[in-house]
Amino acid sequence: MLLQLSTWQEIETYLERSQGIILPIGSTEQHGPTGLIGTDAICAEAIARGVGEATQTIVAPTINVGMALHHTAFPGTISLRPSTLIQVLKDYLTCLNRSGFNRFFFINGHGGNIATLKAAFAEIYYDLALSLPDAPPIRCRVGNWFMCGSVYKLAKELYGREEGSHATPSEVALTQYLYPDFIKTASLPPKVASGYPIYSATDFRSHYPDGRMGSNPDLATPEQGKQFYERAVKELSSKYLEFLSSD
Amino acid sequence: MLLQLSTWQEIETYLERSQGIILPIGSTEQHGPTGLIGTDAICAEAIARGVGEATQTIVAPTINVGMALHHTAFPGTISLRPSTLIQVLKDYLTCLNRSGFNRFFFINGHGGNIATLKAAFAEIYYDLALSLPDAPPIRCRVGNWFMCGSVYKLAKELYGREEGSHATPSEVALTQYLYPDFIKTASLPPKVASGYPIYSATDFRSHYPDGRMGSNPDLATPEQGKQFYERAVKELSSKYLEFLSSD
Amino acid sequence: MLLQLSTWQEIETYLERSQGIILPIGSTEQHGPTGLIGTDAICAEAIARGVGEATQTIVAPTINVGMALHHTAFPGTISLRPSTLIQVLKDYLTCLNRSGFNRFFFINGHGGNIATLKAAFAEIYYDLALSLPDAPPIRCRVGNWFMCGSVYKLAKELYGREEGSHATPSEVALTQYLYPDFIKTASLPPKVASGYPIYSATDFRSHYPDGRMGSNPDLATPEQGKQFYERAVKELSSKYLEFLSSD
Amino acid sequence: MLLQLSTWQEIETYLERSQGIILPIGSTEQHGPTGLIGTDAICAEAIARGVGEATQTIVAPTINVGMALHHTAFPGTISLRPSTLIQVLKDYLTCLNRSGFNRFFFINGHGGNIATLKAAFAEIYYDLALSLPDAPPIRCRVGNWFMCGSVYKLAKELYGREEGSHATPSEVALTQYLYPDFIKTASLPPKVASGYPIYSATDFRSHYPDGRMGSNPDLATPEQGKQFYERAVKELSSKYLEFLSSD
Amino acid sequence: MLLQLSTWQEIETYLERSQGIILPIGSTEQHGPTGLIGTDAICAEAIARGVGEATQTIVAPTINVGMALHHTAFPGTISLRPSTLIQVLKDYLTCLNRSGFNRFFFINGHGGNIATLKAAFAEIYYDLALSLPDAPPIRCRVGNWFMCGSVYKLAKELYGREEGSHATPSEVALTQYLYPDFIKTASLPPKVASGYPIYSATDFRSHYPDGRMGSNPDLATPEQGKQFYERAVKELSSKYLEFLSSD
Amino acid sequence: MLLQLSTWQEIETYLERSQGIILPIGSTEQHGPTGLIGTDAICAEAIARGVGEATQTIVAPTINVGMALHHTAFPGTISLRPSTLIQVLKDYLTCLNRSGFNRFFFINGHGGNIATLKAAFAEIYYDLALSLPDAPPIRCRVGNWFMCGSVYKLAKELYGREEGSHATPSEVALTQYLYPDFIKTASLPPKVASGYPIYSATDFRSHYPDGRMGSNPDLATPEQGKQFYERAVKELSSKYLEFLSSD
Repeated sequence: MLLQLSTWQEIETYLERSQGIILPIGSTEQHGPTGLIGTDAICAEAIARGVGEATQTIVAPTINVGMALHHTAFPGTISLRPSTLIQVLKDYLTCLNRSGFNRFFFINGHGGNIATLKAAFAEIYYDLALSLPDAPPIRCRVGNWFMCGSVYKLAKELYGREEGSHATPSEVALTQYLYPDFIKTASLPPKVASGYPIYSATDFRSHYPDGRMGSNPDLATPEQGKQFYERAVKELSSKYLEFLSSD
Repeated sequence: MLLQLSTWQEIETYLERSQGIILPIGSTEQHGPTGLIGTDAICAEAIARGVGEATQTIVAPTINVGMALHHTAFPGTISLRPSTLIQVLKDYLTCLNRSGFNRFFFINGHGGNIATLKAAFAEIYYDLALSLPDAPPIRCRVGNWFMCGSVYKLAKELYGREEGSHATPSEVALTQYLYPDFIKTASLPPKVASGYPIYSATDFRSHYPDGRMGSNPDLATPEQGKQFYERAVKELSSKYLEFLSSD
Repeated sequence: MLLQLSTWQEIETYLERSQGIILPIGSTEQHGPTGLIGTDAICAEAIARGVGEATQTIVAPTINVGMALHHTAFPGTISLRPSTLIQVLKDYLTCLNRSGFNRFFFINGHGGNIATLKAAFAEIYYDLALSLPDAPPIRCRVGNWFMCGSVYKLAKELYGREEGSHATPSEVALTQYLYPDFIKTASLPPKVASGYPIYSATDFRSHYPDGRMGSNPDLATPEQGKQFYERAVKELSSKYLEFLSSD
Repeated sequence: MLLQLSTWQEIETYLERSQGIILPIGSTEQHGPTGLIGTDAICAEAIARGVGEATQTIVAPTINVGMALHHTAFPGTISLRPSTLIQVLKDYLTCLNRSGFNRFFFINGHGGNIATLKAAFAEIYYDLALSLPDAPPIRCRVGNWFMCGSVYKLAKELYGREEGSHATPSEVALTQYLYPDFIKTASLPPKVASGYPIYSATDFRSHYPDGRMGSNPDLATPEQGKQFYERAVKELSSKYLEFLSSD
Repeated sequence: MLLQLSTWQEIETYLERSQGIILPIGSTEQHGPTGLIGTDAICAEAIARGVGEATQTIVAPTINVGMALHHTAFPGTISLRPSTLIQVLKDYLTCLNRSGFNRFFFINGHGGNIATLKAAFAEIYYDLALSLPDAPPIRCRVGNWFMCGSVYKLAKELYGREEGSHATPSEVALTQYLYPDFIKTASLPPKVASGYPIYSATDFRSHYPDGRMGSNPDLATPEQGKQFYERAVKELSSKYLEFLSSD
Repeated sequence: MLLQLSTWQEIETYLERSQGIILPIGSTEQHGPTGLIGTDAICAEAIARGVGEATQTIVAPTINVGMALHHTAFPGTISLRPSTLIQVLKDYLTCLNRSGFNRFFFINGHGGNIATLKAAFAEIYYDLALSLPDAPPIRCRVGNWFMCGSVYKLAKELYGREEGSHATPSEVALTQYLYPDFIKTASLPPKVASGYPIYSATDFRSHYPDGRMGSNPDLATPEQGKQFYERAVKELSSKYLEFLSSD
């Protein structure tokens, strides 16, 4: 049930039974020598569609570009500045709220988006309430697929410490499952930097010269990707339904 | 050659031979009772990918949501405000320019985006030049698939005046070709409003109650869509190459 | 009937019979070696006043500085950034709407303003509707004097291809008619660049070194200027009345 | 020496001998039952042109609309919000500075502009210095014609306490001198409110129901206007030259 | 009666008897070789608390950082840009107004804040009225302690022309009274620059190399500081009560 | 070593040995029936000063108002919108960086600030690098006193589940230690809401009617506050030194 593959009259009908919508948000950023630049958007989109099917929920077009400023010293990365992303989210939610949606469930593929999403939600709640004090209040929630308990557990089992925290085998596996024709190989140095905090883009690249953060994406297989996909869809479907029904 | 399916090192290599990139931009807006809400993004994306293949050019992730404020009285429409879209484009191009790209070819699926794109380009040229006066200047161009001479001619031949100007049979045909499983039907009133200028969203809906502007999308077929696709890809590929080589 | 030469009580009285207002908008930018920097504002202002008289309509003070960023590599050019111009227009229209005006007819002297005007209108319609959902909707229209059919036809007859597209003989003629004491002369190279698309200011100046775009303003005379003035006033007066009466 | 009546090449020549420019700034706001809405812009423009002639200085197009939010409860008033005016001034000065101007003398006709002008100057100095740390610093100064010592003295002599502080006989006299065909009459209640501080527009109108603040514009004559004009031009010419030559 | 040392229920109770609040605003900027960087915030805060006690009024937390861009060439200075300060004040007053406060009395310790405060008030009145046209209007007033008549008179008597206009003995005396353990000494050159207008930060420092503007803070004593404190509290208490009771 | 109690020359000297600075940031928001509205700023400020003394580091003036939009349905709360707070932080750090500081350690007293701080840091790194590509990069870190391991452990031991997550006994204890004269009492209902996610301000108040989130601040004593203070100072001093020395 993709918004983009629906007509406005189908949405009108949908809104009679539900005011919830799922919004996939990813990022367009380097993912190490073998990870796809679109990894975060690809994963979020696929899982969001899975959740949409499982829960009979409308899924919005994917927000492909998120907050990845710290990756911009690597070619190919595109990022919004947080101030811009807040405005984008405000515009999205204002429109959708005007349509009648008031429960917004973001399925997120990128840790770097979380802070800005939270900041944006607070600002949107406030600004909408100021301009339309009598409208029914909206609610937003973020579901990070990579932080699902079942996903985390599997990643731990499969990769241990080699999961790392960026360009991880779990996300690479998921993209391999989704795009088997785009599995990349490269000779990865066995030793990979980890543990440095994230500051500026230049700083990031000097500490993480090939883009990976403590990860060994060589461990990834498409079959594992399928497992991650299924676990994330299942867990986030539950979370979405719980969100929708909470008072 | 999709940016999202590449690694950063592949982009680094690409930049040695070309500094051009194609950016599909669409819209998420009502397209009448049988048109998909994602029509403009779907068309732009497909054609951009075709041009990318034909010209061996990197294609960025699609900007799915554009400037469609006048459609926001129909449920399901999502729009950025022009001020926001200008910021989004500035963020995209600043990042990509930092990567090394300096020729930006937007393949656009929505007439309503054109004004804001033009305004944004002027502002981006200026702001980039102020902050980095010595950097090589960037250039942007918009290729509107629906305004290609060969496309326009075919639409005229096939549909005459029933092409209309929104939710047109040509764009509907193209989405039918791309998504044959999502061909929608509805009983369309034979008489459809046309000729009213566009003002506010409320104004728009009162003049165009089912969302169409003078069009008869019932005439569309997937086969025609294929023809539109091929013509647009061919013509925009030429335009892109000419843009790239112009001094 | 200039707003600036009226009292607030005269405006109050005017608003009882009409809610329309004419807003001249020009630009302050180089117009080649013999064109006045204020050409676009001067022409828009004079024609707007003519239309105001012909239609008994209030004319606002001229917006002298518009969107001319691409001319800023020539000394004397002043431009707003599109984001700023959008804010300016929003402030103007919000005030005037609060006064009771709701039909805004911009008489425009500069092609470079059109995109930003369109973008601004969309944003203003939307923002006003969000903040005051129950207020009567406003409508905006742009009348570009240089694109009037009767003007275009005359320019074609008089100058043919030497009309060009910037620092044109038609606009120079109009300023000569309005400011006969400020007719400038210079030895203009017979060969003048044309056909290059517009990118950054530096790019513009390198392609159009004396500021003209394919034009031969030497052909202009004050008498021709008078003809342009009269045609533009007549045609835009009709357009304004039609705008006002449209439902 | 008006910028708008010059060519870019004349400006280029001018900049070789001076980097100073005069910018008239006014307001478009109610001026009581007999004052012109454009009073502040009209006065600033005329005096600026006088100073320009006296000192052989380029005069920019008038900023007709300033900060008059407190007058917006009277029809016909147009105002920028201070945030917008700051951006406008930043855009003006950035362009002009890029041309080579670096001494900006604002001739101001409206007390309500002063605070925002000062705030804008501070922000512009800072932002220009951040983005172009090595460029020669710019300087701005405001010359308020109505606060000139010689003007103030004359107003006191002619009108005493009936000068008031808005819609004053001195400014009305000046517009009568400049626009003798637009002298307005109305039966002015002899008792006029004064002394209330300025808060919101609604507040303002409730305290000053006909728009005047303690003034009796009935006292104004065109001959007095001529005297004000000459005194203001003389005094501001001195101030401009002193500004230009200060180290 | 400090807001920060109250509970929300105490504020709820307070609002039943008064809708007034005192907001101290200072600056964090160089104050010459012996003046504390926090001088303006320290003075404003102490006097605001004194006024709060004398008038039984709630005092908000001090705005420690104001508009001091012209001091930023001296280490330790922190300043907001005027655009930012306007937003900050808008956020403060929108929240407090939502709580029920509608009389805002700023006790200000820094001349450089005045212009931006005034600009902000105008914008806030307008924006609040647009978004909540039916809410009771708010009012703002600035009380500058250093411009109190009684303070000014004492400074004149004690220091004559050596009071100067920045890093003055009067404000230094006040901080000495409040922080006797932080009295600084330095060998101050007897000759101190004065009379230069304020432009950019670099300009400022080149004209005022040690940060003082015409002042001799060596004259300050804690006892004098006590006198200034008492006079300012007394005079601003009267002004606050008058503000509160004005219609 | 408070910035506000230093002279600019002392800061100049300090910068020769260290480029680090501590910035306390709190919030001004309801803290239940017995918690002070300034709790978060009071705690952050006291601990920051302790860390400053322990590590011989300059401490900036406290940012008293943070991101507390979700508390604005309770009177007395003041909050910045995230977009504003990002601008404020950008202005602070740009100034301080220009002074020579490049290691910014925020000691934070409010969970609601964390997301916006993170978003701001990313944007500031990026914007500073764009405008000054050759300047030494800055680094920011947040130290949340209430999330220190040693603090958390003690709170668990003392209060168990009654610690809750807002208006907690630990923070109340700390303010009791710092302001023993402002210990508030109220009859607290033994049953307190907990576990609801945070959405809009109205939503928050309806779920948490007295402002507490699962906490029992009645358990707090000043003596416990002293322990929290000492633990937080010790732990954050270590963290600051580690931050400063990290490469």
